[in-house]
Amino acid sequence: MGTEKNVRKSMPASGSAPAAAPAGVLPPLSTEQVRLVANTVRVLSAEAIEKAGSGHPGLPLGAAEIGVILFGEFLKHDPTRPDWPDRDRFVLSAGHGSMWLYSLLHLTGYDLSLDELQRFRQLGSRTPGHPEYGRTPGVETTTGPLGQGLGNAVGMAVAERMLAARYNRPGHTIVDHRTYALVGDGDLMEGITNEVSSLAGHWGLGRLIVIYDSNRISIEGSTELAFTESVAGRYRALGWDVAEVDGYDPDALRQALAAARANEERPHLIIARTRIGKESVKEDSAEAHGAPLGAEAVARLKQKLGWPAEAFYVPPAVYQLFAERRTAWAAARSQWEQRFAAWQQAHPEEARLWQEAMEQKLPDDLEAELPHFTAGDRVATRSSGGKVLQAAAKKVHYLVGGSADLAPSTHTYLKGEGDVGRGAFGGRNFHFGVREHAMGAILNGLSLHGGLRVFGSTFLVFSDYMRPAIRLAALMRQPVIYVFTHDSIYVGEDGPTHQPVEQTESLRLIPGLEVFRPADAEESRQAWIEALRRTDGPTALILTRQNLPVLPHTAEAVAEGVRRGGYLLQMVTPESVLPDRTAAAGANGSSAAAPGTVNSAVPPANGADDDDLKLTLVASGSEVALALAAAEKLAAQGYRCRVVSMPCRERFLRQPTDYQRSVLPNFGRRVFIEAGVGNGWYRLARPGDVVIGIDNFGESGPAEAVARHFGLTADAVADVVRRT
Amino acid sequence: MGTEKNVRKSMPASGSAPAAAPAGVLPPLSTEQVRLVANTVRVLSAEAIEKAGSGHPGLPLGAAEIGVILFGEFLKHDPTRPDWPDRDRFVLSAGHGSMWLYSLLHLTGYDLSLDELQRFRQLGSRTPGHPEYGRTPGVETTTGPLGQGLGNAVGMAVAERMLAARYNRPGHTIVDHRTYALVGDGDLMEGITNEVSSLAGHWGLGRLIVIYDSNRISIEGSTELAFTESVAGRYRALGWDVAEVDGYDPDALRQALAAARANEERPHLIIARTRIGKESVKEDSAEAHGAPLGAEAVARLKQKLGWPAEAFYVPPAVYQLFAERRTAWAAARSQWEQRFAAWQQAHPEEARLWQEAMEQKLPDDLEAELPHFTAGDRVATRSSGGKVLQAAAKKVHYLVGGSADLAPSTHTYLKGEGDVGRGAFGGRNFHFGVREHAMGAILNGLSLHGGLRVFGSTFLVFSDYMRPAIRLAALMRQPVIYVFTHDSIYVGEDGPTHQPVEQTESLRLIPGLEVFRPADAEESRQAWIEALRRTDGPTALILTRQNLPVLPHTAEAVAEGVRRGGYLLQMVTPESVLPDRTAAAGANGSSAAAPGTVNSAVPPANGADDDDLKLTLVASGSEVALALAAAEKLAAQGYRCRVVSMPCRERFLRQPTDYQRSVLPNFGRRVFIEAGVGNGWYRLARPGDVVIGIDNFGESGPAEAVARHFGLTADAVADVVRRT
Repeated sequence: MGTEKNVRKSMPASGSAPAAAPAGVLPPLSTEQVRLVANTVRVLSAEAIEKAGSGHPGLPLGAAEIGVILFGEFLKHDPTRPDWPDRDRFVLSAGHGSMWLYSLLHLTGYDLSLDELQRFRQLGSRTPGHPEYGRTPGVETTTGPLGQGLGNAVGMAVAERMLAARYNRPGHTIVDHRTYALVGDGDLMEGITNEVSSLAGHWGLGRLIVIYDSNRISIEGSTELAFTESVAGRYRALGWDVAEVDGYDPDALRQALAAARANEERPHLIIARTRIGKESVKEDSAEAHGAPLGAEAVARLKQKLGWPAEAFYVPPAVYQLFAERRTAWAAARSQWEQRFAAWQQAHPEEARLWQEAMEQKLPDDLEAELPHFTAGDRVATRSSGGKVLQAAAKKVHYLVGGSADLAPSTHTYLKGEGDVGRGAFGGRNFHFGVREHAMGAILNGLSLHGGLRVFGSTFLVFSDYMRPAIRLAALMRQPVIYVFTHDSIYVGEDGPTHQPVEQTESLRLIPGLEVFRPADAEESRQAWIEALRRTDGPTALILTRQNLPVLPHTAEAVAEGVRRGGYLLQMVTPESVLPDRTAAAGANGSSAAAPGTVNSAVPPANGADDDDLKLTLVASGSEVALALAAAEKLAAQGYRCRVVSMPCRERFLRQPTDYQRSVLPNFGRRVFIEAGVGNGWYRLARPGDVVIGIDNFGESGPAEAVARHFGLTADAVADVVRRT
Repeated sequence: MGTEKNVRKSMPASGSAPAAAPAGVLPPLSTEQVRLVANTVRVLSAEAIEKAGSGHPGLPLGAAEIGVILFGEFLKHDPTRPDWPDRDRFVLSAGHGSMWLYSLLHLTGYDLSLDELQRFRQLGSRTPGHPEYGRTPGVETTTGPLGQGLGNAVGMAVAERMLAARYNRPGHTIVDHRTYALVGDGDLMEGITNEVSSLAGHWGLGRLIVIYDSNRISIEGSTELAFTESVAGRYRALGWDVAEVDGYDPDALRQALAAARANEERPHLIIARTRIGKESVKEDSAEAHGAPLGAEAVARLKQKLGWPAEAFYVPPAVYQLFAERRTAWAAARSQWEQRFAAWQQAHPEEARLWQEAMEQKLPDDLEAELPHFTAGDRVATRSSGGKVLQAAAKKVHYLVGGSADLAPSTHTYLKGEGDVGRGAFGGRNFHFGVREHAMGAILNGLSLHGGLRVFGSTFLVFSDYMRPAIRLAALMRQPVIYVFTHDSIYVGEDGPTHQPVEQTESLRLIPGLEVFRPADAEESRQAWIEALRRTDGPTALILTRQNLPVLPHTAEAVAEGVRRGGYLLQMVTPESVLPDRTAAAGANGSSAAAPGTVNSAVPPANGADDDDLKLTLVASGSEVALALAAAEKLAAQGYRCRVVSMPCRERFLRQPTDYQRSVLPNFGRRVFIEAGVGNGWYRLARPGDVVIGIDNFGESGPAEAVARHFGLTADAVADVVRRT
């Protein structure tokens, strides 16, 4: 709390603030100032939307005063330094109100010119239809799909507490900010909002302050049509502090915000009663929500507010006012920098860790510390992945994560690293509960905040529950890691509701998401390395429930092969499976565990120049061992089989053509095997090639029986190849 | 209420029931009977799970008494007639507790033998790992993915009220049942549960009675780890009636259930405190949740309960008890049949409508009544689809549906047909609010109930929010219709958060879901017909926001082409685009609106025998007009172009090879165009073919500018073809 006190003392009073009003970070603006800035937001928003010919004027006009109080008085920020680590975070969860945010960012002095406001919703502008992270200074996250923003805000608020627990020291408070969000009726209807709010209450995130722009209008009309619950009652039941205020009463807003800042026990919901499209002729009507007001209505709005006819006019007093505030904000930021420097000097070890975490620097010896696995052993990749994760977490101190109530099954609990919970933010394990969607959105918020690297786990089939959040991680290029286990019909007895058949391929379709489905424990190790190395987007690790043989490849081949997304794992030829060579191939008799020898330069046998007898078998995950077993059967009948493991098709498709051709030569036939919907493999197939997949839902039964049912045995695969 | 009273009087008292206990449909069982049946459920469940080697004993042991009271006393059902339309519905939302349900179904007399219980979780059994609709008599819906079941129950409960409003007449109460559900902690953490519960409260579904098996244990341990909200408080805020009882006190359970039955104002949540794995050595431990107890623990359980060593032993008194009750249940059902017959006689017109609705019979003149569209006009398929829907709704009286707060944009509001709402269940329009996932699960419940045909609409990009429910519709083969509009980057200004690039392809991956993306208004008409005709699974209609030209094809060609999933729309050849033939092609000058003439038997021009100059352009939706425009450009340069519209790839892939080859001949090159991730089209491509898609997220800007940015113009497409 020291921060704000210091700041407050050093600030020059600006305007004629009511003496009794509760103060935020800066002293209150005068009533006239609030009104002037709010109306500037209204006019800029209405004009930009009018010029673009589309957009959502309802929120910017309805919540203008809220924005002024928040951005002008309460937010601890420095518009000239939007990357200041200790800034307050603000999330516009109701992202369709983007012009509200753009107007406020422009007026307070972020690098967002009036020109850009005039280019609202134009290709390549900094003012896209919905706020996009990375495109506009001051935009902390991409919003628009409702509910996601509040989830991100919960993630940011917990990140702040986690960094505070890690780095603050007595007399040195360097992590000391709040997270604000503005949500609308639509946000609060979405189920994800309840999930994240239940967690925020459970964790006691007292530095999370959410303002609910309660205008009681959604697209189809009044919220009376579909939304008559008591939001206040629900949030109290979720463990939140709830206040209700008039959204146009600056003092009431200040009172509520100041009270929220003063109580750090519980998260805060401030229900601000507003009127959509306020001051326009469409005030309080669903028509104000999502379409331009119309030229005449904009003209009338400006007239009513006493505005000049000039387009995109900003009263000089508004610019002047924020120029003064920028000085104050910069001073606060510079004071923080001094405090930060003092902390660095007093705590050099913590400062080193901070630096590493902010830069997401991986230790040089990381790979050396990760376990290897013994060829021939049988290990589920969820289990090997878990072991690799344990070792990685020991080396990467800022790696944190959790599970949607499945850690014992997904093997992702970081042993001895403690839990994240109310008053215990030094831990590294999250218990998200059975709330996959919340997990996805909170991971995004944690990642966006900075200073942490995050993972989350659940069963692959339930990735569907969190897909909208995964999509946003990809869109924002956040390096979130998803651990999705129980990855196919080999789930067995739990049946079709729990057997993902279409999820792997469906994740591969999300642009920018890298999907790794390792074939064995060693590949799972390398997939974790690739995921940790990646800084420009999310990665999904698709792991098995069932044991798989550790394949007899070299560490170098795996490292290179997984990095490139696909590689020639093994040649299986008539020569390599001849009885007199069986001994060399390992004597344990299991074709899957000892799938022939590595034999990439075998001289052609009889028939080897017959193109039809040359096969390239391509698979990922558990089907690689199946491909090896099938190759053995086929080799015994004269086929020469190249077995390719392709853990990440997207990576492979980005390799140079020469490399691709070395893995998938143009001779012979290709056979693709996937224990799921095989559609995606056709991209690599040619006429006459074979794709063996599952075009229906799974079945409940022992895994082997289910696999047999779907023709996923070495014999069945070999039969298909011979028959086609 | 007449039903239950009649039934109650006619029932013989069985056992020594406490005189004062509140009664359900049948008189109370004696305390000893409750105990005996509950323990039978415990032992059967524990033994079946033990035999299977996997499963979830926690719920069956913990909630056994609840099951006995519910199935033995309160549920109005006739196990010999699981299709009785006026039966109470029961949904086990916590589907992992499947053995609880199977045990009760077996004991009460459904067609589920003891043999089947012993085949728990075996391939092809009637007792799969999670309950599957259509596989087991008495299983009303497929559950397992948490939260879905409660959503289905809400759908069933509203369906009951809707049919009651439609068919009950004074003195004739033929629709008069309740919906019960059992939910667990996991269900209540999922966001979808909050969405559907908010709607149930809003609609005042007083005949929905939900029992919460509150054992406070989830997979990772105590719910204290992640779930400390006040569920009672939340549900009260959502408009529910909430009671809390001891899950092992039969009288308390009866009292709560009877009170719930007596109050039809609000939905009911009965929070039953239970102990997971009750009576076993793992009682109250997370270990009891999801793994067999172990042979020794099962033996100790049986010993403790005084059970003989014999496996799968059912005390004869238990069978005897339910044999008596079956007589009473059958009598009640038969009384209903008499009432139904009397109603049929008194209200033949209603009876005819009932019959049609139950059989989902389409009127013979349906197609004749659906509007056609004029070639050359420009119409968005959301708009044409909306017009077709309006006309279809006039003819198909049992067609109902709604939108997740986007009806004005998706054009799915049935004009003049009224809204569904509290006390107003005669309407046909649902306002789901911004709750896509709830919409999906409720549509499933409405469809499963019978007597209604349902659709739901939102923007295509938000189909991600409801994907788990869509998957279940497909798995259960429910003919739900999804209207997904704003289907590509042509959404324009709203930007990448609202531009679906991967969703169409991702929906195509769900087994059994048919995805239609019509190329114009006429195809949208036919797609609606196909969707309405389909009875064995769900259909997604993917419609545009933007206007598209109505293409110059015949109604017959469209009908046949859409039914088959893909067809040759047009030949565009050098001859057809020669200047002297332009007049014949229509003189309006717009290449998209008048894309050459139909010309399938043009004599070869110079170069026409050059294979490289023969093209087949394949597209769906808005890209068909683009393909036609590109074909014109290419034809002017000597190419002979076949333009294929493929609205439903899944259908096309099921056509005979001859037909497929007639549409996609083996000569020349194929060019696939999709304003989205193009992966799926490779299935139809050969080496050298071209797939033009979008492998990244969209951009905010006017639709035309965005399309140009992604190379989706006739010139750019023609260029790609020439260059490759």
